[in-house]
Amino acid sequence: MPDRLTSYADLIVRVGANVQPGQLVFVNGYVEHVPLVRAVTEAAYRAGARHVDVQYTDMHVRKAFIEHAPDDDLPMTQPWQLARSEALLDGPAVIHIAGETEPELLAGLDQSRVGRARPLESVKIQLQAINDRCTNWTIASYPTAGHAQLMFGEPDVERLWEAIASTVRLDEPDPVAAWREHSEKLQSRARQLTERAFSALRFSGPGTDLTVGLLPNTRFAGGGTVTRSGVAHIANLPTEEIFTSPDWRRTEGTVRSTRPLALGGTVVRDLELRFEHGEIVAVRASVGGDAVRAQLATDEFAPRLGEVALVDGDSRVGKTGLTFFDTLFDENAACHIAYGAAFAYLVDGVDGLGPDELRDRGVNVSVVHTDLMIGGPEVAVDGITSDGASVPILREDVWQLN
Amino acid sequence: MPDRLTSYADLIVRVGANVQPGQLVFVNGYVEHVPLVRAVTEAAYRAGARHVDVQYTDMHVRKAFIEHAPDDDLPMTQPWQLARSEALLDGPAVIHIAGETEPELLAGLDQSRVGRARPLESVKIQLQAINDRCTNWTIASYPTAGHAQLMFGEPDVERLWEAIASTVRLDEPDPVAAWREHSEKLQSRARQLTERAFSALRFSGPGTDLTVGLLPNTRFAGGGTVTRSGVAHIANLPTEEIFTSPDWRRTEGTVRSTRPLALGGTVVRDLELRFEHGEIVAVRASVGGDAVRAQLATDEFAPRLGEVALVDGDSRVGKTGLTFFDTLFDENAACHIAYGAAFAYLVDGVDGLGPDELRDRGVNVSVVHTDLMIGGPEVAVDGITSDGASVPILREDVWQLN
Repeated sequence: MPDRLTSYADLIVRVGANVQPGQLVFVNGYVEHVPLVRAVTEAAYRAGARHVDVQYTDMHVRKAFIEHAPDDDLPMTQPWQLARSEALLDGPAVIHIAGETEPELLAGLDQSRVGRARPLESVKIQLQAINDRCTNWTIASYPTAGHAQLMFGEPDVERLWEAIASTVRLDEPDPVAAWREHSEKLQSRARQLTERAFSALRFSGPGTDLTVGLLPNTRFAGGGTVTRSGVAHIANLPTEEIFTSPDWRRTEGTVRSTRPLALGGTVVRDLELRFEHGEIVAVRASVGGDAVRAQLATDEFAPRLGEVALVDGDSRVGKTGLTFFDTLFDENAACHIAYGAAFAYLVDGVDGLGPDELRDRGVNVSVVHTDLMIGGPEVAVDGITSDGASVPILREDVWQLN
Repeated sequence: MPDRLTSYADLIVRVGANVQPGQLVFVNGYVEHVPLVRAVTEAAYRAGARHVDVQYTDMHVRKAFIEHAPDDDLPMTQPWQLARSEALLDGPAVIHIAGETEPELLAGLDQSRVGRARPLESVKIQLQAINDRCTNWTIASYPTAGHAQLMFGEPDVERLWEAIASTVRLDEPDPVAAWREHSEKLQSRARQLTERAFSALRFSGPGTDLTVGLLPNTRFAGGGTVTRSGVAHIANLPTEEIFTSPDWRRTEGTVRSTRPLALGGTVVRDLELRFEHGEIVAVRASVGGDAVRAQLATDEFAPRLGEVALVDGDSRVGKTGLTFFDTLFDENAACHIAYGAAFAYLVDGVDGLGPDELRDRGVNVSVVHTDLMIGGPEVAVDGITSDGASVPILREDVWQLN
């Protein structure tokens, strides 16, 4: 029997990224993720990788940069960063290890500087690589003491390990088979929603009355993606969502976040947003509202939606009963929206269009993409048909469509 | 009072690299060096750095690469590695954190693959940046459990901390002033040797009878270097050596290493070399001889000398009485030679020459540079004048010139 770390690494490499023989594999993680990064590196070579290129990030170095760099340097991309991002367009496998180690590390900083401290040229290419489906990529989390502390009030890493193992089906006798079945269920529901061709989705619950307009030529996706060159991969471990890119011009109403939002070192709590003509015009939060406002100020289209996603009560994440304070998990416990960039590959007939043309077709383009949990048992979700009728999709977190 | 880590980081930044206001600073370390890398990053910003770019290496990832990569890929340079190396030519400060964490990690691998697993294009640019004095750089060591285990037979990191602190004069009331004085002493001895204009140096002791021919237009250096743009820096912390680039064609005789040699994951013991017409023609060792032979096979000029250096018994490193199994320290405990690349900046009249022209003038060019300790109280060192007379330089580790 391989140990848990090795099984997890194999799952990430074989089911998540689905590394192909001969591929270049990028692995990105924090310095605190060393054990999993090493296990993933070995697993990638076992899967036939030609070369595994690891890049470690140190959030304390990032914090020092945000504190000390000249203002104009914050969005700077160094040539070597750019070169590594450009390589994404050649079609490597990409594995991101997540798992904040000090989730509140950046909370005391000037949040407008935190928001602007992103290598813009690099980020644009990374988003292009995703939108053009260049890479078979995945994100998976390593359980850290800091993350366990945030979740449980004590650094109980073993408890977090068990929670993560359950959400990624490592507790199944055959995790790879379990993922195949799960993935097929999500794909089937995505097809179901695409066929219904709703004009909008409506979320109703305490503090929430939100209508999200959909594009007529949009598809729902879930349970995996296929690259341009035909490699099936699962971009998030875990994943429980069915999602699409909405029409950025047609979101209206108010929404109350149902879970805390971990935002690059700040935990935003009790977030409420108001939309008018697709745009976020008011932000309220008990903690961390400035971090959201700073992100929304990044570019003109950051305050418009790029994603809407549905998750039911069968979710492995939801069933843990835990808040992970980490979007990778929490977005899979509950229905959510994301402000910022849309996934253009979900929209028919826009292939190869530039940013302005995409926006003309209702597809949002931004360097921001932040998921925000808005669902739960108290939030009803309906599909609105083109003639204005309501069709129940979720009631008390139970899927209603057949 | 700043703590020891902070004081050390300040010493590295202010005395070692001498970071200038507005500079880009590269920091390179292992994932096990995180505490010092973070402290150095903060110290660099305190010294006015514009941007600190950190790159972490993981020796386990490197080991996996050496084990699994296709043979032809071993010397490959990725475009993003090349871009970061090319930036060295623009004159950043560079800080390398050393300190092996598992010194024997690569010992079980095919040593010819270990030797060839170097990004050649990158290495060439890095050597060029040093030779052209583009960067103000330094190397300093972080005390790790693995290094302490190797030295003491137990992971006594505190004992290693104290040893390192002593060698880098952190135990002085004013370390910066102590370094100024020490640096001036070494510079004065280097001038003394340069003025003597010896034709050769001769080392005599147990197992050693070696004559190293010097170039007429060479200078000795020690106690610091000055970049092309005038920034004084100390490339090694500690440093106790006075060194020059010898004539690669004129080394003759045999030499026995007086200390173990740590060579990228392998510890070479009881090394003996024989030189004919400047070239190493025989390698013997009780352990690790293959690692040396693999390095010497890297290119045609690897088996020729690029450096000869003198260290006396006043050395802070020598005085610890310890073998560090790390060239950064051990080369400063004892006289040494290095096979491979010479320092062209020490030779007058060769500025801007290409590799072939440099070799024509007796200056070695190679992608290898490995220091090898050959001195100690039992080894006498003499200068040989142009008319063949011997002038004592070191006897029982005491400096003899006035």
